Amino acid sequence: MANERVISIFQGLLEKTKELIEEKQITHEEYREFCLWFDELGRTGEIPLFMDVFFETHVLRGMYSGLPGTEPSLLGPYYIPNEPGLQAPYTLPQRQDEKGEVLFFTGNVKDIDGNPLQKADVYMWQADADGEYSHFADGIPEYNLRGKMKTDEDGRFTVKTVIPAPYQIPTGGPTGKFLTYIDSHPYRPAHLHFIIDVPGHDKLITQVFFEGDPWLETDVADGVRDSLITKLEKFDDHTKGSITFELRPARVAAAKK
Amino acid sequence: MANERVISIFQGLLEKTKELIEEKQITHEEYREFCLWFDELGRTGEIPLFMDVFFETHVLRGMYSGLPGTEPSLLGPYYIPNEPGLQAPYTLPQRQDEKGEVLFFTGNVKDIDGNPLQKADVYMWQADADGEYSHFADGIPEYNLRGKMKTDEDGRFTVKTVIPAPYQIPTGGPTGKFLTYIDSHPYRPAHLHFIIDVPGHDKLITQVFFEGDPWLETDVADGVRDSLITKLEKFDDHTKGSITFELRPARVAAAKK
Repeated sequence: MANERVISIFQGLLEKTKELIEEKQITHEEYREFCLWFDELGRTGEIPLFMDVFFETHVLRGMYSGLPGTEPSLLGPYYIPNEPGLQAPYTLPQRQDEKGEVLFFTGNVKDIDGNPLQKADVYMWQADADGEYSHFADGIPEYNLRGKMKTDEDGRFTVKTVIPAPYQIPTGGPTGKFLTYIDSHPYRPAHLHFIIDVPGHDKLITQVFFEGDPWLETDVADGVRDSLITKLEKFDDHTKGSITFELRPARVAAAKK
Repeated sequence: MANERVISIFQGLLEKTKELIEEKQITHEEYREFCLWFDELGRTGEIPLFMDVFFETHVLRGMYSGLPGTEPSLLGPYYIPNEPGLQAPYTLPQRQDEKGEVLFFTGNVKDIDGNPLQKADVYMWQADADGEYSHFADGIPEYNLRGKMKTDEDGRFTVKTVIPAPYQIPTGGPTGKFLTYIDSHPYRPAHLHFIIDVPGHDKLITQVFFEGDPWLETDVADGVRDSLITKLEKFDDHTKGSITFELRPARVAAAKK
């Protein structure tokens, strides 16, 4: 970020903070109490978690509300770069005995006029059937349930994976403590993460949710958008789901400014 | 803090954040960049430093502006409890060869009607002549230049110490990096820290500054108040300084709400 931009945003933050202090009549004791908790949040490495649970959604809504195309949702703190490139037919890397219901998920990648986008880079990651992410929980192989794919000539990809469990954000640390302060549960509805990148289009960072999930209405991270919910079709030994991703042309977001 | 209070302040914070995102058109890339720096700030333990440098002064101004009595200033991140109780005539604990100009500092503790307050607890701490605090810099004995005193029958205390150097906040970490982003220097004017506590009065947390200090006008932490500046008197082998602390009756601050 350029210095003038940092200064401008920081000045804005100070002004908003002064208003908040005045409006809520925040006391010095409350400030000190807050700082103790805040320092613990920082030292335990939970700042990315806390920020993405409580603030990221507002950044996305601010940037994209009213624009055409598929809505973005949280990147979240669990993305890991350099995921393995997969070969079609696609299966997300998984353990031999990977727990969970088998899911065949199809994504249709289009532009906002409905034209299929071929050779789009599709990055996908998700929690497992216990709601755990590789690289963040012990005992899960590297890049488990993470991979990079490409859309075919019809702008489509299909991947074999498992249905993730609803994700519970960690409750043992300062973020969990904060949830009890504000009387909130720690759950996110089950979801698949995607980044879709095609030259000439805004990179789409989003998530896909499943109809009927008990946490859709009260997602602790407020990441659900109606257009991102898919209805799963159950078969004897597997489940199918699909969604259409519509990528807006590059610079629509920039033009809004 | 009671839950309703946390919820109310947090809702306010979210509203202010949404306004800031909208007004400054903050992008997702800027948000991600900020989060990386913010996580580093947290993991290096610099959150108390950053908060006290940039935010504490606004909490104090919000609480106390327009009220009678001596103005509070920052507690800051360097207060350590359980400082040794000293015996009059007072000398702050120091090394045998403690560097720096000898200072005899006198405080007059009064109520807002000018009556002396006897047996007030006076907690004092300060940086040394290199601008370093014990417990936070290597090689300084525990509780060096920290101590607890009491006012005498005239509501007065005099303590022998050394003149602290202007304090430079640490520049090697994320807070220092932030200062370069906003084109700010890292200095605070030289200062003495005090907490003064007398039953029936608001506890006063404040600092004393010295006339002529080059950083008075641009204190990075914005902690200077005109009424907290003393003029030092130079003698052959020592220096003298004094100030009057006026403590407001308890509950004036509370009554403001």
